[in-house]
Amino acid sequence: MTVRVGVIGAGWIGHEHIRRLTDVVTGAAVTAVSDIDAARAEEAAARVGARVYGTGAELIAADEVDAVLVTSWGPTHAEHVLNAIAAGKPVFCEKPLATTAEDCLRIVEAEMAHGRRLVQVGFMRRYDQGYRQMKEVIASGRIGEPLVVHCAHRNPTVPESYTSEMAALDTAVHEVDVLRWLLDDEIVSAQVVTPRATSKRFAHLKDPQIMLFETAKGVRIDLEVFVNCQYGYDIQCEAVGEQGLVRLPDPSSVTVRTAGQHSTTVLTDWVGRFVDAFDTEFREWIANLAAGNEPTGPSAWDGYAATVITSATVEALDSGRTVGTDMKPRPAFYGGAV
Amino acid sequence: MTVRVGVIGAGWIGHEHIRRLTDVVTGAAVTAVSDIDAARAEEAAARVGARVYGTGAELIAADEVDAVLVTSWGPTHAEHVLNAIAAGKPVFCEKPLATTAEDCLRIVEAEMAHGRRLVQVGFMRRYDQGYRQMKEVIASGRIGEPLVVHCAHRNPTVPESYTSEMAALDTAVHEVDVLRWLLDDEIVSAQVVTPRATSKRFAHLKDPQIMLFETAKGVRIDLEVFVNCQYGYDIQCEAVGEQGLVRLPDPSSVTVRTAGQHSTTVLTDWVGRFVDAFDTEFREWIANLAAGNEPTGPSAWDGYAATVITSATVEALDSGRTVGTDMKPRPAFYGGAV
Amino acid sequence: MTVRVGVIGAGWIGHEHIRRLTDVVTGAAVTAVSDIDAARAEEAAARVGARVYGTGAELIAADEVDAVLVTSWGPTHAEHVLNAIAAGKPVFCEKPLATTAEDCLRIVEAEMAHGRRLVQVGFMRRYDQGYRQMKEVIASGRIGEPLVVHCAHRNPTVPESYTSEMAALDTAVHEVDVLRWLLDDEIVSAQVVTPRATSKRFAHLKDPQIMLFETAKGVRIDLEVFVNCQYGYDIQCEAVGEQGLVRLPDPSSVTVRTAGQHSTTVLTDWVGRFVDAFDTEFREWIANLAAGNEPTGPSAWDGYAATVITSATVEALDSGRTVGTDMKPRPAFYGGAV
Amino acid sequence: MTVRVGVIGAGWIGHEHIRRLTDVVTGAAVTAVSDIDAARAEEAAARVGARVYGTGAELIAADEVDAVLVTSWGPTHAEHVLNAIAAGKPVFCEKPLATTAEDCLRIVEAEMAHGRRLVQVGFMRRYDQGYRQMKEVIASGRIGEPLVVHCAHRNPTVPESYTSEMAALDTAVHEVDVLRWLLDDEIVSAQVVTPRATSKRFAHLKDPQIMLFETAKGVRIDLEVFVNCQYGYDIQCEAVGEQGLVRLPDPSSVTVRTAGQHSTTVLTDWVGRFVDAFDTEFREWIANLAAGNEPTGPSAWDGYAATVITSATVEALDSGRTVGTDMKPRPAFYGGAV
Repeated sequence: MTVRVGVIGAGWIGHEHIRRLTDVVTGAAVTAVSDIDAARAEEAAARVGARVYGTGAELIAADEVDAVLVTSWGPTHAEHVLNAIAAGKPVFCEKPLATTAEDCLRIVEAEMAHGRRLVQVGFMRRYDQGYRQMKEVIASGRIGEPLVVHCAHRNPTVPESYTSEMAALDTAVHEVDVLRWLLDDEIVSAQVVTPRATSKRFAHLKDPQIMLFETAKGVRIDLEVFVNCQYGYDIQCEAVGEQGLVRLPDPSSVTVRTAGQHSTTVLTDWVGRFVDAFDTEFREWIANLAAGNEPTGPSAWDGYAATVITSATVEALDSGRTVGTDMKPRPAFYGGAV
Repeated sequence: MTVRVGVIGAGWIGHEHIRRLTDVVTGAAVTAVSDIDAARAEEAAARVGARVYGTGAELIAADEVDAVLVTSWGPTHAEHVLNAIAAGKPVFCEKPLATTAEDCLRIVEAEMAHGRRLVQVGFMRRYDQGYRQMKEVIASGRIGEPLVVHCAHRNPTVPESYTSEMAALDTAVHEVDVLRWLLDDEIVSAQVVTPRATSKRFAHLKDPQIMLFETAKGVRIDLEVFVNCQYGYDIQCEAVGEQGLVRLPDPSSVTVRTAGQHSTTVLTDWVGRFVDAFDTEFREWIANLAAGNEPTGPSAWDGYAATVITSATVEALDSGRTVGTDMKPRPAFYGGAV
Repeated sequence: MTVRVGVIGAGWIGHEHIRRLTDVVTGAAVTAVSDIDAARAEEAAARVGARVYGTGAELIAADEVDAVLVTSWGPTHAEHVLNAIAAGKPVFCEKPLATTAEDCLRIVEAEMAHGRRLVQVGFMRRYDQGYRQMKEVIASGRIGEPLVVHCAHRNPTVPESYTSEMAALDTAVHEVDVLRWLLDDEIVSAQVVTPRATSKRFAHLKDPQIMLFETAKGVRIDLEVFVNCQYGYDIQCEAVGEQGLVRLPDPSSVTVRTAGQHSTTVLTDWVGRFVDAFDTEFREWIANLAAGNEPTGPSAWDGYAATVITSATVEALDSGRTVGTDMKPRPAFYGGAV
Repeated sequence: MTVRVGVIGAGWIGHEHIRRLTDVVTGAAVTAVSDIDAARAEEAAARVGARVYGTGAELIAADEVDAVLVTSWGPTHAEHVLNAIAAGKPVFCEKPLATTAEDCLRIVEAEMAHGRRLVQVGFMRRYDQGYRQMKEVIASGRIGEPLVVHCAHRNPTVPESYTSEMAALDTAVHEVDVLRWLLDDEIVSAQVVTPRATSKRFAHLKDPQIMLFETAKGVRIDLEVFVNCQYGYDIQCEAVGEQGLVRLPDPSSVTVRTAGQHSTTVLTDWVGRFVDAFDTEFREWIANLAAGNEPTGPSAWDGYAATVITSATVEALDSGRTVGTDMKPRPAFYGGAV
C-alpha cells in the first residue's frame, strides 16, 4: 500500500524530499504539506496534489497522513516529533532531532512510553554505499579492532550566516553520527584545536577547525572541518585498525589526460555527493513503513547522542578544553548497538 | 499518470525488469504478463497483481496495456515489436531488436510508416554515469577529435552453452552500441584476431578474441572480449583524441590496506556493475512515455546497426578477413546523429 | 678496478652517457672519445679528461680502452661493433645494433666465433623498475599464462624529420624488445592499422598507428604508437593472463586538489621517464665488466630480433598486410630464453 | 677530486653508508673506519680498503680523512661532531645530532665560531622525490597558504627494545624535520593523545600515538605514529592550504587484478621506501664538498630544533599536557629559512 506522507516545512530540503517521495521512491505519496509561509506550502502542495494544513499539529492529526516528515526550522523539530509520537504516527525528522539535549530526551521518553520505535532521524550517510562498504569491512574483522579514525569534511564556501558553532552543530554532526555507527562505539569527549584561519572566510568564523573525539573503547578520531576550502566538497574517512585500514572512496569520475595532467573531478556540491544516499534512506524508510515494521535508520537515541556530542564540541571550542559528553546510559529499548 | 506496462517474457531478465518497474521506478505499473511457460507467467503476474495473457499478441492488444516490454527469447523479438507498432503502442525491446538485419529493417520501416518513434532497444550502457561523463568530455572538445578507442569486456566465466559467435552477438554488442553513441560515428568494418585460447574455457570456444572496428570517420577501436578471465567482471574503455584521452572509471570501492597490499574490489558480477544504468534507463523511458514524448533511448535504427555490425563481426571471426558492414543509409527519420 | 670506456659518438646521447659514466656510475671512467665532428669530440673529452681519437677504429685499438660504447649514427653501428668484437673488447651499442638484419647477423656470427658474449644493446626498459615488477609478476604465475598485451607509446610531438617508418624503427622498437623479454616469447608477425591521422602532425606522417603483433606462443599484442599526442610522454603496458592482469605503473607524482580537480602530473619528456632505467642499465653493465663477467643485458641476438621485427612492421605498414618476421633459429649460444 | 671520508661507527647504518659511498656515489672513497667493536671496524674497512682507527678522535685527525661521517651510537654523536668542527672538517651526522638540546647548542656555537657551515644532519626525507614535489607545489602558491597537515608514520612491527619515547625521538623526528622544511615554519608546541593500544605490541608500549603540533604561523599538524600496524611501512603526508591540498604519493607499484581484487603493493620495509633519498642525500653532500661548497642539507640548527621538539613531545606524552618547545631565537648564521 502507498504510504501517505505529510511534510512539515516546505523550504529547500522539504521541497527536495517532496520531489524524492513523489518521483524517485515508489510506494509513497505526499498528501499533506504545512509551512509557516502559507504561499510556500501552497506552491509545494500544488505540484504534487497534496492538501495544505495551517499548522504542523493539524497536519499530523489528518486522516490522510500515515507518516510525518519534519523538515522545518531546527528549533521547531521537537514539538512536531512529540506531536507525531502522541498521535502514534511514524515520523522522519531531519537533523537535528532537537536543539537541546533535554528536548531530545523528552522525545526518547515519549517514544519509550509509546513502546515501539516511531522516530527516524535524517542522518543520510549511513545509506551511502562507501560508508556501508567501510562498515562491512570493519565488521568483518579484516582490519582488526579500530584504533584511530581520520576524517575531513570540506565545503567550498559557506555564507556569512554560518557561525563557528555550526562547524560542530551542522557540519561535524554528520561525522559524529556515522562514526558512532561505523565503530559501534560511543563518543565520550571532544576537543577542538583551531589552526590559523583561512583568509578566504568571513571574519567572525574560525575555519578550519580540528575536532578530536575519544570513544568509550578508546578509539581516537581527528576530524578536519574546513568549510571554505575553495576547491570542492570533499568527504574523507579512514579507519585504522590493528592489522589494516579501510578508506572511504572518492566519488566515481572519468579520468582525463590533457596538457601534462591526469585528473579526475572533485565535486563542488554536496547534493551530488549524497543524492544516492538520500534516495536509499527514503526508499528504506518507506519500505519499512509499508511492511508495518519499525524504522531501522538512526533512532531518537542517535538524535540525542548527536546533540549531546556536538554541544560538547561547541563547549570545547569555546573553552579550549577537552569536554566530556556526560551522556545518559543507553536504554535497552534502543538495542545493544550504539 | 501511471504507465501500464505489459511484459512479454518472464524469464530472468523479465523478472528483473518487473521488479524494477514495480519497486524502483515511479509512475509505472506492470499490469499484464505473458510467457510461453504459463506457470512462469502466473507466478510473475501474481507477485505484482498483473493479469496473465496467453500470447504476446493478446497482451499487446489489451486495454490495460499502455506500453510493451519485450524480454522474451531473441528470435521472437521481431514479431512482438512489429505487433506493438501495428497497435501503435510504445515498445521497449531487450537486445537484440531482431536476430537478422532483414527483420530489423522491417521494424524500422514499420515504425517510419507509423510516423513517430515507438521503439526503444535495451542498450543500458548509455545510461551508465561513467559513459555519460565520457560522452560529455568528448562532446566538450576537451580531448579533441577522437582517433582511437581501447576497450575490454571481461566476464569471470561463461557456461558451456556460450559459443564463439556470442562473443560478438551477445557480449561485444554492448560496446558496439555505446561506441556508436559515444563517438557519434558509424562502424563500417570489423576484423577479429584470436590469441591463444585460455585453458580455462570449454574446448569449443575461442576466448579471448580481439575485435578491431573502423568507423566512418576513421576512428580505430580495439576491443578485447574475454569471457573466462576468472578475476572479475571488468569493463574498460579509453578514448584517445587529438589532444588528450578520457577513461571510464572503475566502480567505486573502499580501499583496504592489509598484509602488504593496497586493494580495491573488482566486481565479479555484471548485475552490480550496471544496476544503476538499468534503473535510469527505465526511469527515463517511463518519464518520456508519461509525458507523452517519444522515447529518447536507443532506436530501432540503433538496433538494426548493432545487428548488422555484430553479424559482420561473426563473419570476420569465421573468415579471418576484414568484413565491411554494408549498412543501409541512415533515414532522416532517425535524426542526424548516429 | 675502474673500467675504462671509450665512447664513439659525442652527440646528445653520447654526451648524456659520458656524463652518466662519469658522475653517476661508480667504477667507470671515460678515457677516450671519437666523433666525426672533431670539435665535438674535443669538447666532450675535455670535460672528463679523456683523449680524443680520430676514428672509432683507433679508439677501439687504444690501450686505455677496456670497453667500447657506441653512440654514433645508426648506420655506423655495425662497423664499430664488429671492430670491437675483433679486438675482443666488450661493446655497448645504442639501438639499433645495425640497420639491416644482415649486418646484425654478421655481428651475431662474429660474437659466436669469438666464443663469449661481448655485445650489449641499449634497450633500457628492461632496467625500469615498473617493467621489472611486471616481469616478476608474470614469471611468478600470479596472472597465469599471458594471452594478450595492450600497450601505448605516446610522445607529445615529433619534429618534421620523423617519418612514418620511424614509428616502428625508432619508437615501437622499445616495446618490441621489452615485450620479448617480459613474455619470454618471440614475435612472429606484424600488422599495422592506421586510424584517421591527427591534425596536429606534419602532413607526411601517419600518426597514430596501431601495431598488432603475434608471438610464437600465440600471444596477441596491440600497440598504439602516437607521437603527437600533445598531452604528455606516456608509456602504458598491460598484460592479461589466464587468471589476472598486471599493469605498468605511472611515474610517481604528488596529487593535488584545486579548483574542482584531483590531479597528478603526466611527464612531458622521456628523459625523466627513463632516467633511472638508464642509470641502472649502465651500473649493471659496468658491474658485470668489472667482475669479469659477460654482459647480462640485451644481446646481439636481441638486437637482430628487434631489427627483423621492426623491419617487418614497416613492411606491414607499407603493404597493409600481415607480415611474418622470418627470423633465423635462435642459436644455443644465446641461451634458452628469448 | 675524490672526497675521502672517515666513518665513525660500523653498525648496520654505517655499513650501509660505506657501501653507498663506495658503490653508488661517485667522487667519494671511504678511507678510514672506527668502531668501539674493533673486529667490526676491521671487517668494514677490509671490504673497501680503508684504514682502521682506534678512536673517532684519531680518525678525525687523520690526514687521509677529508670529511667525517658519524654513524655511531646516538649519545656519542656530539663529541665526534665537536671534534670534527675543531679540526675544521665537514661532518655528516646521522640523526640525532645530539641527544640533548644543550649538546646541540654547543655544536651550533662551535660551528658559528668556526664561521662556516661544516655540519649536515642525516634527515634524508628532504631528498625524497615525493617530498620535493610537495615542497615545490607549496612554494608555488598553488594550494595557497598551508593551514593543516595530516601525517601518518607506520611501521609493520618494532622490537621489544622500542620504547614509547622513541615514537617521538626516533620515529616522528623524521616528520618533525621534513615538516619544518616543507612549511618553512617552526614548531612551537606539541600534544600527544593516546588511542587504545593495539594488542599486537609489547605491553610496555603506547602504540599508536597521535601527535599534534602547532607552528609559529599557526599551522596545525596531526601525526599518527603507529609502529606495529602489521600491514606495511607506510608514510603519508597531506598539506591542506587556503585553496587546495597536496598529498605525498605512494611508492610506484604495478597494479594486479586477480580474484576479485585490484591491488598494488605496500612496502613492508623502510629501506626500500627511502633508498633513493639516501642515495641523493649522499650524492649531494659529496658534490658540495667536492666543489668546495658548504653543505646545503639539514644544518646543526635543524638538528637542534629536532631535538628540542621531540623532547617536548616526549614531555607532552608523559604529562598529558600541551608543551611549548621553548626554542632559542634562530641565529642569522643559519639563514632566513627555518
